Order: sequence, then structure tokens, then C-alpha cells
Amino acid sequence: MVDVGGKAVTSRQAVAEGFISMPPELIATLDRLKKGNAYEVARLAGMMAAKKTADLIPLCHTLPLDKVKLHFESEADRVRVTCTVACHARTGVEMEALTGVQVALLTLYDMGKAYARDMVIGPVRLLEKHGGKTGSWQADAL
Amino acid sequence: MVDVGGKAVTSRQAVAEGFISMPPELIATLDRLKKGNAYEVARLAGMMAAKKTADLIPLCHTLPLDKVKLHFESEADRVRVTCTVACHARTGVEMEALTGVQVALLTLYDMGKAYARDMVIGPVRLLEKHGGKTGSWQADAL
Amino acid sequence: MVDVGGKAVTSRQAVAEGFISMPPELIATLDRLKKGNAYEVARLAGMMAAKKTADLIPLCHTLPLDKVKLHFESEADRVRVTCTVACHARTGVEMEALTGVQVALLTLYDMGKAYARDMVIGPVRLLEKHGGKTGSWQADAL
Amino acid sequence: MVDVGGKAVTSRQAVAEGFISMPPELIATLDRLKKGNAYEVARLAGMMAAKKTADLIPLCHTLPLDKVKLHFESEADRVRVTCTVACHARTGVEMEALTGVQVALLTLYDMGKAYARDMVIGPVRLLEKHGGKTGSWQADAL
Amino acid sequence: MVDVGGKAVTSRQAVAEGFISMPPELIATLDRLKKGNAYEVARLAGMMAAKKTADLIPLCHTLPLDKVKLHFESEADRVRVTCTVACHARTGVEMEALTGVQVALLTLYDMGKAYARDMVIGPVRLLEKHGGKTGSWQADAL
Amino acid sequence: MVDVGGKAVTSRQAVAEGFISMPPELIATLDRLKKGNAYEVARLAGMMAAKKTADLIPLCHTLPLDKVKLHFESEADRVRVTCTVACHARTGVEMEALTGVQVALLTLYDMGKAYARDMVIGPVRLLEKHGGKTGSWQADAL
Repeated sequence: MVDVGGKAVTSRQAVAEGFISMPPELIATLDRLKKGNAYEVARLAGMMAAKKTADLIPLCHTLPLDKVKLHFESEADRVRVTCTVACHARTGVEMEALTGVQVALLTLYDMGKAYARDMVIGPVRLLEKHGGKTGSWQADAL
Repeated sequence: MVDVGGKAVTSRQAVAEGFISMPPELIATLDRLKKGNAYEVARLAGMMAAKKTADLIPLCHTLPLDKVKLHFESEADRVRVTCTVACHARTGVEMEALTGVQVALLTLYDMGKAYARDMVIGPVRLLEKHGGKTGSWQADAL
Repeated sequence: MVDVGGKAVTSRQAVAEGFISMPPELIATLDRLKKGNAYEVARLAGMMAAKKTADLIPLCHTLPLDKVKLHFESEADRVRVTCTVACHARTGVEMEALTGVQVALLTLYDMGKAYARDMVIGPVRLLEKHGGKTGSWQADAL
Repeated sequence: MVDVGGKAVTSRQAVAEGFISMPPELIATLDRLKKGNAYEVARLAGMMAAKKTADLIPLCHTLPLDKVKLHFESEADRVRVTCTVACHARTGVEMEALTGVQVALLTLYDMGKAYARDMVIGPVRLLEKHGGKTGSWQADAL
Repeated sequence: MVDVGGKAVTSRQAVAEGFISMPPELIATLDRLKKGNAYEVARLAGMMAAKKTADLIPLCHTLPLDKVKLHFESEADRVRVTCTVACHARTGVEMEALTGVQVALLTLYDMGKAYARDMVIGPVRLLEKHGGKTGSWQADAL
Repeated sequence: MVDVGGKAVTSRQAVAEGFISMPPELIATLDRLKKGNAYEVARLAGMMAAKKTADLIPLCHTLPLDKVKLHFESEADRVRVTCTVACHARTGVEMEALTGVQVALLTLYDMGKAYARDMVIGPVRLLEKHGGKTGSWQADAL
């Protein structure tokens, strides 16, 4: 695990996004499946996973997150998930935002898999990050 | 968590795949980055994450996995990850295979992020599953 | 941890219940708080906690649960939570049912604590258990 | 998870209490049960659980606790548990104190359940909290 | 993680032992340190760690342990810890027994470190294992 | 858990070392076993375990580690592991360094156990620690 001891504790933020393709009929009922409201379950799973990032990604530092926020938007045949994470720390929260998105997407898959097995996850990517020595960075449009 | 108590304990298997796009120069050095061999770190992270699936996906059952195997193939500008999981249980291991792939991909991202921030993860999907009441299923070619 | 190796793997079930007292105005809005739907958050928290029982209670065995189900009923000035757990194992799931109730109640407290700090949790108790050498047991009416 | 990034890092403290009713004969032997000293097991379980609060309660922030202290008092037919938690953080430790009490009570139940299944947990509540924007708060007498 | 799916579920057992050297004055007070009874804390820590073996050792399978038992013996200038683990599974519990011993020894170190920093842990080794294809094995005398 | 709230947040460091004896033929192939490169697996296991110290050792505080570094040296008939940990915190990281070494040693055992069961772990000890009220400390030569 890279030594971040010489870096300053500063305010850090990162936003990641990801998609999962689904049949429109499934998207139409995601908020009232027999197993529950898929958005709500995915929101909590993503939030809890972001807190566990250092337990999942071997070289990640344990960071005391200030904020984790997931947002869901349904499109015609896919759902978009974004995860915003903020922290005061010696290193950034990009992996936390990406982990939140990935586990939220996995959870949407799990909630829907009784209806469709061929859902496809992706693209998943970092949208922006702020703070730290390298400052702000923003992804190009896809 | 859906009641699986009435289902039989049978042999179950699932295979998932996923991709991460990366600059060719990064792919060329993934096995000897300053932080370590990215494939080896991702392999272990994926394996350990597959074992933690029920701790990440709220409605997943805790399953005593018999086997978790990750495989990596580098292509010109992306890396392909597959995860094969097997188990004797009352429910399938699709989510375990997908979780193994997702966390391996996240770990590749983490290992490479000092060199490129605009890597994109996906598509990630289930390739096949065997066992259980619904028997075998195979994904169509993408 | 007591040796259960000599016991038979049989079907086990347990139901626990618990209460949290709250101001009626808070109960009236629990399903649409600014932080989310408190019932849904508590349901998932209780379910995930039941799966972690052996990690919380030192002498509990790790059991592969078949089912965890939480149920919420709002009364005039309190909310009732029940948790039903089922398993095929060498020992019972009483602690899993109680843990599910306790963490669901804690989560309701957490969701409501911006509105009222003097909520009181209890009584929490085992309602019934089935299976194993001692067979079925049912609590007396309180 | 609510954004606490704008709050100041200050010294925070919370105390929670809880009870479990038990047959007097069981209380008399709690410190020398066949499974061990129930107070000692419950003390450690409560302490370790307080450290895991953010892993149990979905919207809780991960906090680096400075202190966790559990205390047990046996009365005629019940045991009283208090848990005191302190921290320097951007948000309070009320949930950590309550979680410590709840898991200590569950552990007492687990230690005693071979002797009595009808033990009842409760009332469990916050006794006091200090620090943060809202300052000190103290519960009314029950 | 090696595929154990083709192996039979049989009764497995393993015993490991380990030592920690300590000043005799510290050993004399281990059961009543200011921080608690070191044996009791180490016993619970070892037990809980044995249950977490698959979360610590990357290639270990998650096994539903039937029994974990720790035993402590104080000698003139060291403490001996043994850990016995039993399970019905497709693979053995050697790593679980060793992990139980290692974490119990670490905990004894933690309990005593305010009094002596130069305590030395070891030797730690497997004493015996039973069950599985390779049957019983016993360590030679050291 | 001892109250460290009154202590200052300062830079802390600790180094621990440990050994595992192995047959020379096994040492010669540790980096290319059928199960993988044992050093790489042990390195990651030790790193991840150091981050989990507070979850393993009951009275340890949760610390946001700045750095965890493992190093392996093979000798004629044993492997030496060192673990260096650094942190800005109110208490030291001795237990984190020792835990990293212990779990790395356990993992080497696990990787090699198909070839030799009589490997012996130890001696394991703290080599040095810096920072905090008591300042620097260094172990005597063994």
C-alpha cells in the first residue's frame, strides 16, 4: 500500500457512473419487484460497498468517508447509476465511487435476474475527481 | 432473502466475463507495475470478493464455494477477465461469478489509475450457468 | 464454540420480535424521510445483519441461512419488527432471528434520530423456534 | 449517507443503556457458565460491534473511535448494560453506543439461552450525548 | 481457489499449537490486567478469527465450523496456546486451527504490550489433523 | 478499549518480523507453485490483514493506515517476512505490523501445505516502533 503519509489531508471528491442494460418491461417494474424496490436495495448496497472499498481492493487505503450518494435514472432499455463520494483524507476517493457504482449495478442484476439473465453491465467509468495534488479532472464525453 | 430451503442441494456452476479498456502501453506493463503484478493482485481480489458476495449483495445467500477461478487475457487495448465459480448449494452462483469479475476489474483500474484515469469497464455479463431447477443456460454471442 | 458436530443437519426455524417507541408524527413519515424509506433501510440492514450473526456473537456458529424475512407493523406510538430465519444446519437460528430484529430496530432509530432522540427499543424476544433435538418452542404471551 | 464534510471535527461522546431480564438463578451463575464468563464475552462482543457500527447500520459513517467501554450491573432479575463511546469526528457516536449495548445484550442472551429461552431484552435507549453542533443532551428518567 | 467439489463431505479435525514468551511477572498477572483477563480476551479473539480464516487467507474455502476450542497453559516464561477445530466439509481445517492460534497469540501480545514490548511469538505449528483423503497426520516432537 | 482521546495525533511507525521454516526444495519453488506465486499471495494477505487488525484484536483501535509494506527474504531453510506500517493517529501501529506478518506467514503455510505439513512459524516479534509519547524503541538482537 503506497505511503500517503507525506500528503496533506484535503477535501476530496469523486463521481463515477455506470449502466446496466435491461428489458424495458423489467425496467418498468424495478421499483416494485416481488423481492422489493430494486433501486432502494441497490442504493443501500452501493453505499455500504463504498464504505468497504479498502476491504475489497487490496491496495486501497481505509478512508473515513464524509458522504456517499447514489443516484439512479432509468432510460428506455438501461439504468444509469452515479455515485458521488466525498472525504477529507490523504488520498482520493475514485475507487470508492467506482465500487459504489459496481455493487449497485450488481445488485440491480441480482434483483432482476429472475426475469432476465442476459443483462449487460457497462460502461462503468470515473466521471470526475477533485482535490489532492493533481487537482480536478473530468472525463471526456464518451 | 428468498426462501431456498425447499430446493435441493445440487452442484452449481457459473461463468462471468468482463472487460476493461486500457491504453496499450499500460497493458504492456500490467505484470510489472511499481505497485506489483496487476493480474496477480486482481486475481486475488476477485477470488476474495467472490467469497464475500453475500456480504455485498443484500439478498444473496451465504454459500460455501467449492471453487473460484479467475482468468485474464490481454487484448490490444483491453483486458478480459473471466471468473468461474462452483458450489454445492440450494441456489446458484451467478452473483458470485459476476462479483469476482467486477472486483477484479476494479482492482485492475486501481493498479493502473496512476497511468490512465479514463479506463472504461464493461461489458460485464454472465456467460453460462449450470445446475439447479432451471438447468443450463448460455449467453448469446454479444 | 460448542461442538455441534455430533448433531444432525435438520431444518431449523426461528421467529423473533421487537419494538421501538416513537412519536406518532415520526411514525407517520417513516416511509418517506429525507434519508429514505426507513422501513426499507431497516429491512435490508436486518437481513444483512442476520447473515453476520456469527461475526457479532462470539460463540455462534456460521450457518448458511436459507431464508431471512423481516416484517414491520406500525402501531400508534411504536413500530413492531419481526424476523423469521430458516436454515438446514446442526444448530438453531434463534440468535440470527434476534440479531435481525435488533439491527433493524437500531436502523429505525438511526433513521429517526434527527427527529427524536428519546426513542426506546424493547421488548425484544424470541417468539418461536422449530427443529433440532428440543423440537418446537413458543413464547408465552407477554 | 448524509454529507458531514462541512461539519467540524470535534470531541464527541455518547452513553447508551439496555437491560435483559433473566431468571435470578441464571444471573447468579453468569460469570461462570460452562460456555465461559458471560459478562466478559458480552463485553468484548459489544466492544467489537461498536467498531463495526458503520458496517451494520447502512447510513452510518465509519468513525475511528477513541474509546469504547462497557459496564454490566446485575439486578435481582435483570442485567443492565451501559456502553460509553468517544471519538473525534464530524458526526456523533450515538449509534455506536447503542450498537455496543445491543450486541452485548444479544451475547448475554446467547450465553444464557441453554438455561432460559424467554429472556426479554429492553428497554434500550440513549442516555446522553455530548459534542457537535447540538451540544449536550440527556435522557429523561424513564 | 482449488476446486474441492469432487471431494466428499467428511468429518475433519485439526489441532495447532503456539507459544509466546513473556516475563514471568507479566504471566503472573495475565488473568487480571487493567485491560481485562488476557486469556479470556485471547480465547474469544482466536475463536472469532478461526471463523474468519477464509477472509484472511486468500485461497482458503469458507467452511461452516462445528467446533473451535482454545486452550491456554502458562509455563515459567511463556504461554502455550492450542486451538482445536472440527468441521464437516470437503476440505480440512488446518488453516483454521493455525489462524485461531496466531490471533490468540497476537491478542496476548496486545494485552501485555504495555508491560513488555520484546515478547516473542513462536514456535507455531500444526500438531495433528484427521479426516479427508490423506487421513490422520501427527507432528513429530519438536 | 482504552481511551486514546487525550493523546495527540502524531506520525507513528512500526516494523515487525517473522519466520517460517520450510524444506529448501519448497523454498526454491515458492514463486511458481501450482496455486500461484506464494510471495505475492502472502504479500497481499498480509497487507489486507493489517487493515483488519481492529477487527481481529478486540481491544485495538481502528486506524486509517498511511502505509503497509511487506518484504520477503528467502534463506536456506526458512523465509523471513517483515511488515512496516505507518499512520497518523492517537495510538501506535505495533499490532498492525505484527498482524501483517502473522497473516503473511499463515498464507505462506497455506500455499506450501500440499508439500510439507511440518513447517514451523516463528520467531515473530516487533523490531522497532516510532512516534507517540514513548518515542522510539528498537528490539535487541535475538
